[in-house]
Amino acid sequence: MEEIKIFAPASVANVSCGFDVLGFCLDPVGDVMHVSKTKTPGVQIGTVTGQELPKDPLKNVASVAVSAFLEAHPSKEGFRIDIDKRIKPGSGIGSSAASAAGAVFAVNELLGAPYTRAELVQFAMAGEALASGAAHADNLAPVLLGGFTLVRCNATLDIIKLPTPPDLVATVIHPKIELKTIHSRAILKSDIPLQKGVAQWGNLGAFISALYTENYELLSRSMQDEVIEPLRAMLIPKFNEVKQAALDSGALGSGISGSGPSIFALSRGRETAKKVGDAMKTFYDQIGLDYDVHLSPINQQGIKIL
Amino acid sequence: MEEIKIFAPASVANVSCGFDVLGFCLDPVGDVMHVSKTKTPGVQIGTVTGQELPKDPLKNVASVAVSAFLEAHPSKEGFRIDIDKRIKPGSGIGSSAASAAGAVFAVNELLGAPYTRAELVQFAMAGEALASGAAHADNLAPVLLGGFTLVRCNATLDIIKLPTPPDLVATVIHPKIELKTIHSRAILKSDIPLQKGVAQWGNLGAFISALYTENYELLSRSMQDEVIEPLRAMLIPKFNEVKQAALDSGALGSGISGSGPSIFALSRGRETAKKVGDAMKTFYDQIGLDYDVHLSPINQQGIKIL
Repeated sequence: MEEIKIFAPASVANVSCGFDVLGFCLDPVGDVMHVSKTKTPGVQIGTVTGQELPKDPLKNVASVAVSAFLEAHPSKEGFRIDIDKRIKPGSGIGSSAASAAGAVFAVNELLGAPYTRAELVQFAMAGEALASGAAHADNLAPVLLGGFTLVRCNATLDIIKLPTPPDLVATVIHPKIELKTIHSRAILKSDIPLQKGVAQWGNLGAFISALYTENYELLSRSMQDEVIEPLRAMLIPKFNEVKQAALDSGALGSGISGSGPSIFALSRGRETAKKVGDAMKTFYDQIGLDYDVHLSPINQQGIKIL
Repeated sequence: MEEIKIFAPASVANVSCGFDVLGFCLDPVGDVMHVSKTKTPGVQIGTVTGQELPKDPLKNVASVAVSAFLEAHPSKEGFRIDIDKRIKPGSGIGSSAASAAGAVFAVNELLGAPYTRAELVQFAMAGEALASGAAHADNLAPVLLGGFTLVRCNATLDIIKLPTPPDLVATVIHPKIELKTIHSRAILKSDIPLQKGVAQWGNLGAFISALYTENYELLSRSMQDEVIEPLRAMLIPKFNEVKQAALDSGALGSGISGSGPSIFALSRGRETAKKVGDAMKTFYDQIGLDYDVHLSPINQQGIKIL
């Protein structure tokens, strides 16, 4: 294979109760990447459309991830990456993860797939590190594996694919302010109260049980974040109002998507998810802040070849 | 029914990665309680064998729990509780939980079972509060419901029964020093590092996934406690050596049972669990500290009528 075109989806990390460990994959939103072999070794960034991205291979998330891949798996050929960047960087739905995972996935395919999707996470981490200062796999894992994923241990990349209750539909609203992960991490405190930690792991445990048992009521009760959300809410205009509107419209739960500013909700069925999106956006209409709203089933497949 | 005899089992709380939320029920170890109706209302403690327990109904865990039950569900009859206390108080395997849960279970049966097992937790909490200062349901839930249980929220008693992989066998060693829950709680710090919290909820999430998928390797990897065990280990003689010996003998994981001093291990199969127990006890033989060792499958039923 000389060239490949892939779709690298957006994703939602943290999911209220799972800071730095839990994530799920979105469906219609994502980047399109075209990767082709070149005669000269190394990685180059070709055309970039949709968003402005660095062309310097040392500063672009996609090429940095591919370089990490090629260090482990050297190739005499080089690679050119053309990116139609449809996920806005800094929107909180895994922009850098899509770039990094998409690029290594494509190169892996072009080289006859020496690595599994799970194994590719380690290389994509280099791209995430460039984007956010500290590399976490909570967006990469769902982008590569699809569905819901849990990163048991970020250091050893012990990643578990979790089941998805069939009726779940995500709503994501992106108020168009830019929030760098590096800044929304800076606002966190290095210590948390033990009691809030207990509440958090009780909720995450229950959330995971709810995924296995398709218990939507339990899923709803467990979508609480007492640790991170109270600190980050202030970075997102009208966060509390938007979240409350989502819950009042029937969402099972709602919270900050990744490090924000996007806000996500999970609902049972597309109709509720649509209603939730309509309710969420009214607050940004009122203050004249531009936004995007996405409705999405949980993407079971992750990155796909187009 | 005028009288009832029940078996109230011991239990292991925390289970390494689930401080204050996770627990499982043991099988051969437990108290035998005989509860009979009396003509005068109220609760009285009759004979107590096996251990010394307060006879004053206001100071005995079993009668305090029954009083909480009778406040919600008044009865013209009274109850006399005879206890063969086989679980040593302060051993870390849910002695007070067995007394409290056993007593309310028995009285509930004698009154035609107006409450489900799950509903009885709220009354048994009064007994736990007497014993340990702060009431937690992480021992009560497995004693009443059997198997593994998760307390999502201690305030609302949102309790989930979890599945048990069929090959799991517990080993519990009780070095005979007494450690009051109230004291082993005092050693904890009110804050924990966020990074250790993340590790803890990643491990608990993975542990729960492992229960549903019967993945013993994942169960083993997730039995880590970076939050509580490092603080409490010093309260238990030879803890680190005993734990390491359990792991070296093939245990999937090992840690402090509840607030100690008992140390538990989970193994795959009875043969390994036996080997683990033999390895654990050598350290107490060396220093001449008396101990008990229990081998136990996971008790799926919880309290049972004899």
